Amino acid sequence: MSSRKVARVERATVELRETRANLLEAAAKLIRISGVHSLTHTAIAAEAGVARQSVYRYFKDPEEAVVALAENLGVVIRDTFNTSFEDGGPDPLARTSKAVASMLVSDSVLNKALYLSAPLLIAQGKSPVFPNEKNEEALGRQLEASGLAEPSEGTDMLDIVGTYFYGLVYKWATGSSSDKEFCAAMGRLASDIAELAAGRRASL
Amino acid sequence: MSSRKVARVERATVELRETRANLLEAAAKLIRISGVHSLTHTAIAAEAGVARQSVYRYFKDPEEAVVALAENLGVVIRDTFNTSFEDGGPDPLARTSKAVASMLVSDSVLNKALYLSAPLLIAQGKSPVFPNEKNEEALGRQLEASGLAEPSEGTDMLDIVGTYFYGLVYKWATGSSSDKEFCAAMGRLASDIAELAAGRRASL
Repeated sequence: MSSRKVARVERATVELRETRANLLEAAAKLIRISGVHSLTHTAIAAEAGVARQSVYRYFKDPEEAVVALAENLGVVIRDTFNTSFEDGGPDPLARTSKAVASMLVSDSVLNKALYLSAPLLIAQGKSPVFPNEKNEEALGRQLEASGLAEPSEGTDMLDIVGTYFYGLVYKWATGSSSDKEFCAAMGRLASDIAELAAGRRASL
Repeated sequence: MSSRKVARVERATVELRETRANLLEAAAKLIRISGVHSLTHTAIAAEAGVARQSVYRYFKDPEEAVVALAENLGVVIRDTFNTSFEDGGPDPLARTSKAVASMLVSDSVLNKALYLSAPLLIAQGKSPVFPNEKNEEALGRQLEASGLAEPSEGTDMLDIVGTYFYGLVYKWATGSSSDKEFCAAMGRLASDIAELAAGRRASL
């Protein structure tokens, strides 16, 4: 390929990526206003100021835009998780759960909707919006290092922490607890688990 | 009112109740096939074999039918909870969580959809599909009787058990765990919590 052709292809790729990002921002805005289930190609097109056909070119159906937004949230969660985990200092679990909670409530309406849309991702075999296996490994190492990771009748501590996290998320995403209550509970997650685990170690 | 009039009013009331139950059964069938969000008045009318106007008379919008189904599920959960709790014998928490799990997976697709529709109920200030305050009181007394109910830095054991339950429900309702995995985890809930709490008691 000539260098001019290369430049053209590169420019086209950047344009595609930018259009996709604009359409996703439009979809996010619509979800914040009226939820996931009123999302249509027509509404996304109007919000982004493009032709309806363009939206079809990027997303087969509105659900695909929701899945893409959830995947983007997944990336942010994993980054938040890893950054605060590797920050150094004591109590990485407390640091991490607080950082994840602050990030999630900073765009509360959208993120709640994305958590309740997890079946769309899981049906496609995609990893859900919550922390992925790499995060779990890091968390597992942390729990092990602090002696909290012994298996308990078929369920290990990592699984208990994860399930507890999903429980807090469910209560928040359904509106049964507020942003403030969610952040407070996430802030206590580490001490609740640590206290339980300390008791558990003492009983072994 | 004459006894004939009374009989007529009673008959009319029974008819109203039966029609409502039929419409809800039709809505449940549609949700099992294609989810909560494709539910319309037209589809419910066609499924129930009544005129569309009749459906409007009972439910302002399809969400109202979803809320009614979730409230019905709530009644069944509370009954299952109370019945197995008061059955007598050891380990009411294990008995109850197993009974609730079996009941939920017996109509898995519908009940998963109803759990993910909890925001509709909560937005109306209605008690959500999961166990209500009366169940929580019973559970609280049980946890107390077995010495598991001491408060832990702002979170008591009842809250921890509840959040853990919601976590299992979230994983199941989103499809991240199967019916079988959900039942197994619900079966372990009591021993996981009891073991953690035993450790906690030992450390006090």
